[in-house]
Amino acid sequence: MEGTRLCHRNLLPTTNPSLTCRFFSNSVIHHTSFHNYKTNFPKFLVSATMEASFKPEEARVPAVLPLPTPPVTKFKIALCQLSVTTDKERNIAHAQQAIEDAADKGAQLILLPEIWNSPYSNDSFPVYAEDIDAGGDASPSTRMLSEVSRSRKITIIGGSIPERSGDKLYNSCCVFGTDGKLLAKHRKIHLFDIDIPGKMTFKESRTLTAGERPTIVDTEVGRIGIGICYDIRFQELAAIYAARGAHLLCYPGAFNMTTGPLHWELLQRARAADCQLYVATCSPARDGGSSYVAWGHSTLVGPFGEVLVTTEHEETTLIAEIDYSVIEQRRTYLPFQKQRRGDLYQLVDVDRLNSTGAK
Amino acid sequence: MEGTRLCHRNLLPTTNPSLTCRFFSNSVIHHTSFHNYKTNFPKFLVSATMEASFKPEEARVPAVLPLPTPPVTKFKIALCQLSVTTDKERNIAHAQQAIEDAADKGAQLILLPEIWNSPYSNDSFPVYAEDIDAGGDASPSTRMLSEVSRSRKITIIGGSIPERSGDKLYNSCCVFGTDGKLLAKHRKIHLFDIDIPGKMTFKESRTLTAGERPTIVDTEVGRIGIGICYDIRFQELAAIYAARGAHLLCYPGAFNMTTGPLHWELLQRARAADCQLYVATCSPARDGGSSYVAWGHSTLVGPFGEVLVTTEHEETTLIAEIDYSVIEQRRTYLPFQKQRRGDLYQLVDVDRLNSTGAK
Repeated sequence: MEGTRLCHRNLLPTTNPSLTCRFFSNSVIHHTSFHNYKTNFPKFLVSATMEASFKPEEARVPAVLPLPTPPVTKFKIALCQLSVTTDKERNIAHAQQAIEDAADKGAQLILLPEIWNSPYSNDSFPVYAEDIDAGGDASPSTRMLSEVSRSRKITIIGGSIPERSGDKLYNSCCVFGTDGKLLAKHRKIHLFDIDIPGKMTFKESRTLTAGERPTIVDTEVGRIGIGICYDIRFQELAAIYAARGAHLLCYPGAFNMTTGPLHWELLQRARAADCQLYVATCSPARDGGSSYVAWGHSTLVGPFGEVLVTTEHEETTLIAEIDYSVIEQRRTYLPFQKQRRGDLYQLVDVDRLNSTGAK
Repeated sequence: MEGTRLCHRNLLPTTNPSLTCRFFSNSVIHHTSFHNYKTNFPKFLVSATMEASFKPEEARVPAVLPLPTPPVTKFKIALCQLSVTTDKERNIAHAQQAIEDAADKGAQLILLPEIWNSPYSNDSFPVYAEDIDAGGDASPSTRMLSEVSRSRKITIIGGSIPERSGDKLYNSCCVFGTDGKLLAKHRKIHLFDIDIPGKMTFKESRTLTAGERPTIVDTEVGRIGIGICYDIRFQELAAIYAARGAHLLCYPGAFNMTTGPLHWELLQRARAADCQLYVATCSPARDGGSSYVAWGHSTLVGPFGEVLVTTEHEETTLIAEIDYSVIEQRRTYLPFQKQRRGDLYQLVDVDRLNSTGAK
């Protein structure tokens, strides 16, 4: 119940701004191991004397975690905008080839699209779903990801595949480390249920169940927050990841021909600029003949909200360099962290709050 | 202390999702009179039975207020991108002329730029500052706004001017109703203190004091949330206004030649798309000879984040139609309101929480 006690303190006017930090010094992030992370308290953190009445440190509850020092600061990311067919075996082999080609070109982090082993449709999800937790033959898609990440010593954010778990189906993203181990599994938190009459109607909730929690993971290429497609629409999730010290947000996503031109780039740039971190997205290539036509336009955005690399809708692999040192530079230029008004608004990370003191 | 008690309850797991609504049914918004507003519970509000475990209604604390029915649904807004000189009398007469011209063209709402009666510089703020509360000769700029709003029966969001109050200076936006009365005064909450070496360094805090609270106001043309320039960078403020039932956010702002191309349109579109409401901005026209060169590009954005009208940097007045019925339509298409995960994150409006039960 420490979390509950802190919650009360933190939302009340307090004369001791250090309370939050002290209480949360032992907090952990789910699906995250910090053992190889040194903390590196950046210059932009709030000084105790500056504008104390505005309580900038209380604008996030629990308090913002310092940006960790990642194992590498500069590296190449690959966004594999894959074509997806009805042939699952082909899809798996095809993805493997794209990953290996990207690794050959020096990519240390690979991002795959949303639902890359199956057509994107409620009819297909149950048919193509795999039991990821059982593994092996029950999940040939993640078995391939594990094998190739180990053999090539790369980190893979495995897009997403339909996951079967008991009698439920999820839209799930698996993250594999350089040793081939499953580091994290994100189940899409916000299901894609929209209805734009005459343009786009889809209800994932017809077949899928929503995930239970945010997913942020420490990898050999930094601390990465995961969202799947519609998750990007909820700025709170990105802000929570930023407060947990994320360097990069990865969103496998398949926006469509209506929402794509409207919002795909806008949302990526907004999350990056507001949170001052990198945002990478990866879409399937467009297949005009499928029931759901993907927008494509996989993109990497820098911490000023600037598009670093993007593409149209054809199958391709984008390779671009990420440099995390830019994050601290941008946050020094525009020091939101010490300018937020915790006396006026507070974003509460309920999941982290409830997990205080627990591994 | 009701607010405090609710805060605790709301952040705890609860089996009674109606608690929030019940406790806050009497809450009020600052600077707002609701007497002429009927409430209109929109269809997209969360049903008690849908996805109750995700607690979408708890993603905002206090709970989201229903979108009010405004006195008019469709009307014309004018964005007066004024040239600003060192001659205050000229600036006032010039603004009056632009307002009257816009009223002649049918505009019912006028938005002026940030700091339209004075050059934008720390040297100028003390010299051009006016005592708005004293009024009359002590504030010729707001006297003009009051007179013209009454004579033309229009609503004016009066950009901003440097305000002197006791020994403090503020960057303040005054809102005048169709009867010439001052409906609200917003003092810039987030001061513009940035340092991008070799490109843009400015510290408003050298001379200015930050405002104490958000400002949302019921007018003859809807419920309007006010921010000034740098305030737009803080998504929490926009989200708070949306939760208080805003139809429109107005940001007088003078982005510059560095931050303008980077972020001006991005932030407006992001706030509009995330909050699903209208966003209007108004900049001074560009004066290449001044110490601070404004970006211009005053803009109106619709609730899908779409640019409805914009301009370059020259002096001009944009007139465009706003149709609030679009807001509910967009929120039906993309029903974020019932899709947020209050079990995972909560945005707390501390100011409204602390004011529960008080006028």
